[in-house]
Amino acid sequence: MNKEINKNLYQGDETACLPQIRVVLSHTSHPGNIGSTARAMKTMGLTELYLINPKEFPSEVATALASSADDILQNAKVVSSMAEALAGTTMQVALTARRRELSQPLQTPRQIAPSIIRSARAGQEIALVFGAETSGLTIDELSMCSDRVTIPTNPHYSSLNLSQAVQVLTYELRTSCFEADWVDVQHLEEERDPATHEAMERFFEHLEEVMLKIGFLRPHAPKRLMPRLRRLFIRAELEREEVDILRGILKATTEFDRKP
Amino acid sequence: MNKEINKNLYQGDETACLPQIRVVLSHTSHPGNIGSTARAMKTMGLTELYLINPKEFPSEVATALASSADDILQNAKVVSSMAEALAGTTMQVALTARRRELSQPLQTPRQIAPSIIRSARAGQEIALVFGAETSGLTIDELSMCSDRVTIPTNPHYSSLNLSQAVQVLTYELRTSCFEADWVDVQHLEEERDPATHEAMERFFEHLEEVMLKIGFLRPHAPKRLMPRLRRLFIRAELEREEVDILRGILKATTEFDRKP
Repeated sequence: MNKEINKNLYQGDETACLPQIRVVLSHTSHPGNIGSTARAMKTMGLTELYLINPKEFPSEVATALASSADDILQNAKVVSSMAEALAGTTMQVALTARRRELSQPLQTPRQIAPSIIRSARAGQEIALVFGAETSGLTIDELSMCSDRVTIPTNPHYSSLNLSQAVQVLTYELRTSCFEADWVDVQHLEEERDPATHEAMERFFEHLEEVMLKIGFLRPHAPKRLMPRLRRLFIRAELEREEVDILRGILKATTEFDRKP
Repeated sequence: MNKEINKNLYQGDETACLPQIRVVLSHTSHPGNIGSTARAMKTMGLTELYLINPKEFPSEVATALASSADDILQNAKVVSSMAEALAGTTMQVALTARRRELSQPLQTPRQIAPSIIRSARAGQEIALVFGAETSGLTIDELSMCSDRVTIPTNPHYSSLNLSQAVQVLTYELRTSCFEADWVDVQHLEEERDPATHEAMERFFEHLEEVMLKIGFLRPHAPKRLMPRLRRLFIRAELEREEVDILRGILKATTEFDRKP
């Protein structure tokens, strides 16, 4: 009975959540890749494209390669920072081949797709984040994302074209909408109220300020501490209320100091 | 026992069968699509490309888009009929969006991938067959193939670029090599050094002590804070070194208080 209701709910519209998943391209060099990305997105039902400092956009080449997906190009948001591109998102999935630098686990598209779809169906906004063609995402860019995904490739030739990578990821997401018994598993998931990107960034600023104040962060040798703490707390997938608690602790730490 | 043999057989070389799966492009109009197809194939470990009457090949555009996969273009077989392209194969998988014309069942890439990999591992040769960009495979061409596959797309915009379709299919094949019960995907996992239960418990004790000291935890109403923080940090799956850092911060918090 319950199962029947769930089934009806998504009948014919299992993919309605896909527009809540935006594609973010950072510092793309070739406009053709932007056009091909738009086409790849549209075939899989995604609509929102963010471009961080593209080298050339708008562009005739991009429009030509988008084929009939140029509506996505016309609605694309050109922004100048990762923070703008991620605003409002609660989950940021970065494509990378880097394995060692960060301690977040590295997942395959297939492993991560169900949790992305679950979040989107719960009304969350999600970003899929792709770096520049040759260099990929920088360590700084990666550190602003909550999750890392890698496409399993031939170890002797792993150079996927940018729009091909977008195609694989978005294909997994669309396929995931129809798969799994996730509808049945949904009741096992708790209601979550995840912190936004902006709330997390304010928390990290506050944290750094207090680390300096209590002398744990040396102003002349600050290198590794903040990135490490950032990764730890991003991995924890903090809820809005938990960020409030942690900031309360930070506040108490410094106020405590003022009273002798 | 049988499972054990399989595991040894493919240990470290689960994808060795992929070169037995050839890609056949029929009547391709744009040489760029041939180049992008070569690149897509190589990233997924396929090597054999057959071209039936390509409009323009060899081509500089194809070579440029193949990037470092031009070895696949150099070894490509240009033939003049489907029969030549399929010679030696025992399974021919045709990509199509046509649903009504033929009575073979239409499968998704995910559904058909395991049987392709099983056949390849049994020493068979298999063809993945793709038609011309605008029109796709003809009824005649389809009738020469043993299986039909379709990529699930947005019903309002199903126009996948040719090389994107090749990417999705070959990605499914490579992924399928590691799935099933054959082997584990462990090599994708990073080395982690997780904190022990005991280390976590010592951290929580330390945390509670400092929360009391800075006045954030009220001794007479301590109820909900510690369980909440405990869940948060357990969810973060802390590493040994991260626990050390966090305890360092706690120590700095209280020591800071002693001097002023």
